[in-house]
Amino acid sequence: MPRRIDHVAIIVRNLEQALIFYRDTLGLEPRAIQDVPSEQVRIAFLPMGGPQGSEIELIEPTTPDSSLSRFLEKRGEGMHHLCLEVDDIDAALQEMNEREVAVLDTQPRLAAEGRAIFLHPKATHGVLLELIEKRPQATRRVER
Amino acid sequence: MPRRIDHVAIIVRNLEQALIFYRDTLGLEPRAIQDVPSEQVRIAFLPMGGPQGSEIELIEPTTPDSSLSRFLEKRGEGMHHLCLEVDDIDAALQEMNEREVAVLDTQPRLAAEGRAIFLHPKATHGVLLELIEKRPQATRRVER
Repeated sequence: MPRRIDHVAIIVRNLEQALIFYRDTLGLEPRAIQDVPSEQVRIAFLPMGGPQGSEIELIEPTTPDSSLSRFLEKRGEGMHHLCLEVDDIDAALQEMNEREVAVLDTQPRLAAEGRAIFLHPKATHGVLLELIEKRPQATRRVER
Repeated sequence: MPRRIDHVAIIVRNLEQALIFYRDTLGLEPRAIQDVPSEQVRIAFLPMGGPQGSEIELIEPTTPDSSLSRFLEKRGEGMHHLCLEVDDIDAALQEMNEREVAVLDTQPRLAAEGRAIFLHPKATHGVLLELIEKRPQATRRVER
């Protein structure tokens, strides 16, 4: 069902510090660095592999009381979640529910680049797994 | 320098159990399931996104005394490392050394599908980061 890996999210204490490694040392060019106050984070997207490629997403929590902040305090910096692109998030959610997979969302949430659901790590062998339907598809759906 | 995300490795207790979710529920078709006694693991590769796409690699430690086993006991199941493809692993190793990045290998190690080095999580903001030069390039190098 998933068509590709969309991104791997890495949680970091300080985005600028992390970019010193990922951009300056490794040579990955950010396509966007965004402040997202509604989610209490700053994000940098580092694309690789062309239009069909996958990205590294660096996430810095900007407040001390978000769930991401608590994750960072508890686990330290590192990989936080894995995101796979699907064609139809509503169908994916329905299928996960039918198969009794633990989903953290009762309906798709609005993500930066589409609509998404998160699967609980207990259902995925330890991975916080995001499934996303990217915006072009979401827009097309609205037009039907 | 990295051209694409090659794979995301997920460490699991039991490969067959993990495939019940990743293959049967999520619908990802393994292209290979390999027993690798030399590394004390069983591995399943789950490709997505076509020839330029990235894979999920499921890893089950098969002995109790490998470093992967100890990781599993300590941290539980979940994402273990992230692998990026590079064109020239020798050049990458040299550059990482020149920039004083902590590398776990003094020379590239033979991986299942090429030659690779691992960067220490302390250099990468918490990510065990593999850089790999895939076999076709490795073969071409030998022919020079």
